[in-house]
Amino acid sequence: MAGNSFGTLFRFTTFGESHGPQIGCVVDGVPAGLRLSEADIQPDLDRRKPGTSKFVTQRRESDEVSIVSGVFEGFTTGSPVGLIIHNGDQRSKDYGQIRDQFRPGHADFTYWHKYGLRDYRGGGRSSARETAMRVAAGAIARVILRDLPPKPVIVRGALITMGGHGLDRTRWDWSQVAENPFFCPDSEAAILWAEILEKLRKDGNSAGGVIEVVADGVPVGLGQPIYGKLDSDLAAALMSINAAKGVEIGDGFEAAALNGVGNADEMEIDAAGTPQFTSNHAGGILGGLSTGQSVIARLAIKPTSSILTPRRSLNRFGETVEVVTKGRHDPCVAIRGVPVAEAMMAIVLADHLLQARADGTPLTTRPWDKKEI
Amino acid sequence: MAGNSFGTLFRFTTFGESHGPQIGCVVDGVPAGLRLSEADIQPDLDRRKPGTSKFVTQRRESDEVSIVSGVFEGFTTGSPVGLIIHNGDQRSKDYGQIRDQFRPGHADFTYWHKYGLRDYRGGGRSSARETAMRVAAGAIARVILRDLPPKPVIVRGALITMGGHGLDRTRWDWSQVAENPFFCPDSEAAILWAEILEKLRKDGNSAGGVIEVVADGVPVGLGQPIYGKLDSDLAAALMSINAAKGVEIGDGFEAAALNGVGNADEMEIDAAGTPQFTSNHAGGILGGLSTGQSVIARLAIKPTSSILTPRRSLNRFGETVEVVTKGRHDPCVAIRGVPVAEAMMAIVLADHLLQARADGTPLTTRPWDKKEI
Amino acid sequence: MAGNSFGTLFRFTTFGESHGPQIGCVVDGVPAGLRLSEADIQPDLDRRKPGTSKFVTQRRESDEVSIVSGVFEGFTTGSPVGLIIHNGDQRSKDYGQIRDQFRPGHADFTYWHKYGLRDYRGGGRSSARETAMRVAAGAIARVILRDLPPKPVIVRGALITMGGHGLDRTRWDWSQVAENPFFCPDSEAAILWAEILEKLRKDGNSAGGVIEVVADGVPVGLGQPIYGKLDSDLAAALMSINAAKGVEIGDGFEAAALNGVGNADEMEIDAAGTPQFTSNHAGGILGGLSTGQSVIARLAIKPTSSILTPRRSLNRFGETVEVVTKGRHDPCVAIRGVPVAEAMMAIVLADHLLQARADGTPLTTRPWDKKEI
Amino acid sequence: MAGNSFGTLFRFTTFGESHGPQIGCVVDGVPAGLRLSEADIQPDLDRRKPGTSKFVTQRRESDEVSIVSGVFEGFTTGSPVGLIIHNGDQRSKDYGQIRDQFRPGHADFTYWHKYGLRDYRGGGRSSARETAMRVAAGAIARVILRDLPPKPVIVRGALITMGGHGLDRTRWDWSQVAENPFFCPDSEAAILWAEILEKLRKDGNSAGGVIEVVADGVPVGLGQPIYGKLDSDLAAALMSINAAKGVEIGDGFEAAALNGVGNADEMEIDAAGTPQFTSNHAGGILGGLSTGQSVIARLAIKPTSSILTPRRSLNRFGETVEVVTKGRHDPCVAIRGVPVAEAMMAIVLADHLLQARADGTPLTTRPWDKKEI
Repeated sequence: MAGNSFGTLFRFTTFGESHGPQIGCVVDGVPAGLRLSEADIQPDLDRRKPGTSKFVTQRRESDEVSIVSGVFEGFTTGSPVGLIIHNGDQRSKDYGQIRDQFRPGHADFTYWHKYGLRDYRGGGRSSARETAMRVAAGAIARVILRDLPPKPVIVRGALITMGGHGLDRTRWDWSQVAENPFFCPDSEAAILWAEILEKLRKDGNSAGGVIEVVADGVPVGLGQPIYGKLDSDLAAALMSINAAKGVEIGDGFEAAALNGVGNADEMEIDAAGTPQFTSNHAGGILGGLSTGQSVIARLAIKPTSSILTPRRSLNRFGETVEVVTKGRHDPCVAIRGVPVAEAMMAIVLADHLLQARADGTPLTTRPWDKKEI
Repeated sequence: MAGNSFGTLFRFTTFGESHGPQIGCVVDGVPAGLRLSEADIQPDLDRRKPGTSKFVTQRRESDEVSIVSGVFEGFTTGSPVGLIIHNGDQRSKDYGQIRDQFRPGHADFTYWHKYGLRDYRGGGRSSARETAMRVAAGAIARVILRDLPPKPVIVRGALITMGGHGLDRTRWDWSQVAENPFFCPDSEAAILWAEILEKLRKDGNSAGGVIEVVADGVPVGLGQPIYGKLDSDLAAALMSINAAKGVEIGDGFEAAALNGVGNADEMEIDAAGTPQFTSNHAGGILGGLSTGQSVIARLAIKPTSSILTPRRSLNRFGETVEVVTKGRHDPCVAIRGVPVAEAMMAIVLADHLLQARADGTPLTTRPWDKKEI
Repeated sequence: MAGNSFGTLFRFTTFGESHGPQIGCVVDGVPAGLRLSEADIQPDLDRRKPGTSKFVTQRRESDEVSIVSGVFEGFTTGSPVGLIIHNGDQRSKDYGQIRDQFRPGHADFTYWHKYGLRDYRGGGRSSARETAMRVAAGAIARVILRDLPPKPVIVRGALITMGGHGLDRTRWDWSQVAENPFFCPDSEAAILWAEILEKLRKDGNSAGGVIEVVADGVPVGLGQPIYGKLDSDLAAALMSINAAKGVEIGDGFEAAALNGVGNADEMEIDAAGTPQFTSNHAGGILGGLSTGQSVIARLAIKPTSSILTPRRSLNRFGETVEVVTKGRHDPCVAIRGVPVAEAMMAIVLADHLLQARADGTPLTTRPWDKKEI
Repeated sequence: MAGNSFGTLFRFTTFGESHGPQIGCVVDGVPAGLRLSEADIQPDLDRRKPGTSKFVTQRRESDEVSIVSGVFEGFTTGSPVGLIIHNGDQRSKDYGQIRDQFRPGHADFTYWHKYGLRDYRGGGRSSARETAMRVAAGAIARVILRDLPPKPVIVRGALITMGGHGLDRTRWDWSQVAENPFFCPDSEAAILWAEILEKLRKDGNSAGGVIEVVADGVPVGLGQPIYGKLDSDLAAALMSINAAKGVEIGDGFEAAALNGVGNADEMEIDAAGTPQFTSNHAGGILGGLSTGQSVIARLAIKPTSSILTPRRSLNRFGETVEVVTKGRHDPCVAIRGVPVAEAMMAIVLADHLLQARADGTPLTTRPWDKKEI
């Protein structure tokens, strides 16, 4: 059954496999009249691109995106935006073992059971290569978030733990995120992480990590109250990323250890007369709707399953095998997960921004009610 | 826009407010020919019902459910199952402050902004009262999980932390869950939690908690690989529960601190010749599809926002106010969240079971491929 | 699988059977802040109600609707509007033959095959009784069409042929529609039709008819261009009505006999400077989008299948039987189909009005482009 | 909002404009394990291809389709099937008038109003060029209909009126459909039509037509009973085709002129003990579900709007203009509409076949109920 689309009013559908001729994406629901070109998309793809450091896969992909529809003379037309990336690096090679083995932590066994056959080349459809199209769709979502609301909504992400090692939030500096191979906002932590990951990589091992994504400038009232809640949609979006195992909003699991007094986000009026919260335990969402504060989510990514250390498994003939996954794998997939997580948050917010238009939700501060005397 | 339905092939839609005449639910997509009566639903509702201990709200609700359509002579007909619960306890009272105030941690401010008006009586639509219908729909999902697969799929839940206090997993006993007011599988922890929560409650405070839900007997291959992933749908389902702030699958956030060698779930053949995993870090899901192991999810619930301790906030006239939420509130909403979380997991699994039928996914062990010689 | 909902942004779900305790409907996606009460809905239900003349079924139903959610202090809240009608006339009777027989022209055989069992009482779910909830949902759609656009959109319907007998369009008078038992805008035709139908009824026979529905005041640009076309959605909506066999837009099947010169709707500027069409062969829709002209659709309804004349059929035991359908049946179901067809058109237009808000489609005349010199 | 997808379990999404670099399609929900290659798709595309006779547009398009994903070693994998056709004939030319004018009968005015800008080259997204991807998706639907049911379901179509001129049903011969430029099953009518259309074409005029599509071998019970009715979905599918103005099922508008006795399709048992109908006024659908008879639908197509005869209209500056549409246009778009209508019917049936699997609907004859004695 159809399961390759995401979103409601902003809806994208991806296709393509790791080693097929191309991967692609159709982004439907993009409003007309927005300025859009490949230059709005390519930079995000470049941040996710393989081969940028020794801590990401060395697969060579230019990941050059083409817009093939939906844009005319530099502006979106309201028609679906088609995006294509040609796969540059389809090495012809002997897949040998991989063809038949169920790699631990991979979708090999479950795909084989479900479908009876599988495209084993580089993981086929289950490869994280699909996430390039999420980043591309996310870049279009960012254009909507930039141009439609009264003030632009900005989505940023960072890696906040790597292999169980955290960072110092007092050193958080967004400008550092682009300066190290980890998307880490704490430059000192990044140095430490580099040492740790280098050792794991040489040992044929791998690491997990936690990603934090933050949206600033979100209008109040985005989301639907019961089943299209903003947090519910964010959870679905983030949990659909390869290797994701957990999602938190605001204080997340720590909120479960707080008491009601400590968890309450109090409100006050600021100098300009607009309502403000004095804290943000809620992560910018109450009752499924945005509060106007920063929307904050975190995503747990398991360690890369493709490792050089032999693991015991089965093959499709029912035989016991030892699996060693050679090849060009990310020692910590959480790193390249950062732009993907940003993209998914942007997609959810753009969708809800369009929903808010349908709902008639005011995108600026609602005037206070008049008191009847 | 429409946002009160959940699910794809098994799809339910709820309606009703906390203090309206009734709450209700339409469950669409229930296969024909299943034995179903109120007796299949009421026990689950009774587990969620208010007033069962001093640790849950004392609101008096019989929560008696009626099936008003979709069942004929004891069997489902394939038509939508309509479920109604009449609200028994609509106390006529002076809502006074609540009418105008934005209670911290509640949806009051966000609803007011989004809609311009709100049904303030008991939280209106944003009240956790809506979750009664989730439990009812979940009970029907359980009937599907019981009758359609070769072996019944069983979904159970437990509270595993309360106010930051955990339990001893070596004492885990499912039979204890029904024996204490916390749905706690560790009878000793339950005694300690009772003391802690009693103190918080008397202090006008409240507590959060973590719920664990487990499905046993799940066939291999449920889920869609990219955007209708089983884990993504579970995350959406669980995060849509009132007060939820985090969702984990399997090792969840702890997986992010593991390395690839430690995280790998190895496979072997058991005596009966069927594939088995030797561990379950993955929580029963790989590549978005069930592995045949237990599906395990955890859900973080924030502390009850309705507390007697005064908190600073605003009202709809833009005035600063002190909010004290009197009334009959759960000191720890996570407790009654347990049957709700079970229901949402059952709903997601029933939906994917029907999807698997559409996909032609085998619900029993797939025969091994023949080796070409 | 779920198939009891209709619509995208304005979405309603119905439940209930002909002889169950109640029928109901959940209308989701109703914007907040609209004035709504039962008084907005009941008049439309009364137009569809049985027992109003000898040409409609004599089943006694008060069809009194209750709003059970989604409205607070006289205004919609943005929450789903729950609607309930209690079935008054559930005669306990011996269903005898009907229980086992497949009535020709009915869904008996197809339901039995699909589901293996069926609620045979009065047709169960397949009864036209379900259309009462469409009328109720349509009445809410009309409130949206009345209050949201700059000018109200009005939807009206009429029966234009009965048993193959037409009317004289030069005598068309909307005010006559409420004055005869046929919803016929030509009072003279109505007199003739009465004679014809009375004879058919006495002969144990029945008649079909064609319904025309017209929406005036529709803004330009409602619809989606490819698969959510306004005409495509109207066709789905109207064809889903019981006994419908054909749908036309504008000139419909007659357009297929025209040539391109004759079919062209030319445009001009009116005195007020707004664009106008000089004809409306298109029925108010071009490229799937509304043109600003009246949207015109026609619906063919087959003759009532429940007739007193014996017809040969089978029963569920595989035996040949003679079927005579006694009871209180409409001799021409097309009559009561008129308010149902109006309701479905209103629902489609309300949905697309909300979609237009999401799209940013201007609901008033778009200013002409400036000519670059 | 998203409006470029069609279907529920078999769901396809198209993208691309008439004069863009490529058009494409993603077909999601294709079951795994079906043998599929371009050779299954190309013949249907060739039937729809421009330039095959003087009665269709002379635009030169090879319409060569490539499968870029979802197929591995000759079999579908369960992943979305990506299809691409490169636009060969993107003549660089002066669009001059067309750029600014609203061509009568076209989507120019409505697109301009809705979006504020439009891709005027060859109609952009509103061009019938999009229907090539429907034909491609339909060819995949045919593979499902061929391989999944116990017996193949065959979908065929024919033009039955051209410019108001009908055919003789007693001469109906499916084998003739491929032998004349009209897809006409009556070879004599085809000769007459050729003369008529040639004259219209020379006069700068055009013609409409009626298409009939028939599916044989459809299992009983496909469809959902209320809003996903087989006839409702067919109506939506067919009415979404460019230039469609009417849809009928079975006797269609003629049924509205029948009486109940004449319209009844009686049933009997055939020699093999299976239920049969003695007539098919219903067009193979009762209560929204297939009866096992041939599913028959007709589609009215208006005359081509692009004509050489001048028509009065406006341009986007609000000026009155005379429009003459030069270029390579079909004098009767209904002709090339035949394979498109077939494709849409195949798509609806394939979708409902998958839905039937989810529902547990038996795809073969259901055994008769046992009589209790």
